[in-house]
Amino acid sequence: MARQIHKVLPQEDLVYLGDTARVPYGAKSPSTVVRFAAENTQFLLQQNVKAVVVACNTCSAWALPILEKRFKVPMFGVIVPGVNAALAKTRNQRIGIIGTSATVRSKAYSTGILSRCETARTFAQACPLLVPLVEEGWLNHPITHAILAKYLQPMLRNKVDTLILGCTHYPLLKTAIRKVVGKRIALVDSAESCARYVHEKLENMRLLNPARSRTGTIQPFVTDEPDRFSEVAARFLGVPTEAPWKIELSPL
Amino acid sequence: MARQIHKVLPQEDLVYLGDTARVPYGAKSPSTVVRFAAENTQFLLQQNVKAVVVACNTCSAWALPILEKRFKVPMFGVIVPGVNAALAKTRNQRIGIIGTSATVRSKAYSTGILSRCETARTFAQACPLLVPLVEEGWLNHPITHAILAKYLQPMLRNKVDTLILGCTHYPLLKTAIRKVVGKRIALVDSAESCARYVHEKLENMRLLNPARSRTGTIQPFVTDEPDRFSEVAARFLGVPTEAPWKIELSPL
Repeated sequence: MARQIHKVLPQEDLVYLGDTARVPYGAKSPSTVVRFAAENTQFLLQQNVKAVVVACNTCSAWALPILEKRFKVPMFGVIVPGVNAALAKTRNQRIGIIGTSATVRSKAYSTGILSRCETARTFAQACPLLVPLVEEGWLNHPITHAILAKYLQPMLRNKVDTLILGCTHYPLLKTAIRKVVGKRIALVDSAESCARYVHEKLENMRLLNPARSRTGTIQPFVTDEPDRFSEVAARFLGVPTEAPWKIELSPL
Repeated sequence: MARQIHKVLPQEDLVYLGDTARVPYGAKSPSTVVRFAAENTQFLLQQNVKAVVVACNTCSAWALPILEKRFKVPMFGVIVPGVNAALAKTRNQRIGIIGTSATVRSKAYSTGILSRCETARTFAQACPLLVPLVEEGWLNHPITHAILAKYLQPMLRNKVDTLILGCTHYPLLKTAIRKVVGKRIALVDSAESCARYVHEKLENMRLLNPARSRTGTIQPFVTDEPDRFSEVAARFLGVPTEAPWKIELSPL
């Protein structure tokens, strides 16, 4: 996500917080997701950010509406841009959604889609093995294809023509997902659609950095030891960053 | 683990703490594992326990030596009993170890084995997909067999005759593991060997509850919402418990 935002908004300085000590969030309860997301947001506000992007789908699904009420700063999540992108791409209004157990349980994508298009049909599948597969690095392995086939076949039988990759890790499985679903299904990468959405919103709010020729920095913060962060950074950020700092989050 | 201890020591009252808000621990760094384990131990001591069993292999591997210095209560982990059981079972002194990334990185089992038997050879494999497979419930699925085969074939080629299941989740995969490794390899269930070890140690320390005819209770505490705990309890505890209480851990 930081990579896509840096690409779309190269002149902005990005402050990135990875709650590496407490991830993954995808199997946690709503109240714990909200509590952790609020602590993360408070830390980012202490860094004087002008806006917050909730890049995690699970946090966007469960916590964003509560964070927006609690914190007085523009906040953007991945659900609304993902819904918009899916509705722009689908032709048969049959949309598949894959995500963590918590994201799927929230019904955030389905509710968003149906509130914009009553005639749409949504087919959601929780895929708890995909994040560990990405972290294991089996991005295009026969076992990954078998697991994806098991998760995706029911919605393929239901003739979805668009699939929302509703978790930050899933775009790394695009090649494998494409192999399983074929060429005809449109894939919605929530990070890409969110980056464009953030650009549009900041522009409307006149919050864009006017110095278009400068190149912004990315300052990463993590909650676990930063030693293995360079590996993660290469995979997720895809751009050089400052050295990561380890921080302790304060309970609210 | 609580199930095995309750079986071996039915007269004891057990206080069980599941740090469900922050699991899994298997990919966290040593310093974070130590910090979380110390917070968990402090909570248990506030419940006036007479001894603490560190049932998580990752916590035993990284945190136990530090916890023992810090807290003045008998503490038992799974590594020493697992090492003892493996050395009692092996005939060719070639021992396989599977665990989380953190447990394998700690080399706790290998170091323990080699300190007791210089001529032993150990073969360790981190298996980060196994915990998610257990949580997904694919305990005996063809995909699970394929993943186990990929993880275990190198140590099978190295002719191990004993395999330590170095994570609390892995005994639930015993049937699948047996299918992949065949009948001739001895499996060491760290929970079983630890329960016997705790019994022996408490007896030596004269800390056993003398009321042998009573049946002890199991009081579970969790850090995330308890709503889905009954499912976990059925799988891991296997015995009826009091209703779980949600608690907040204090930072140290």
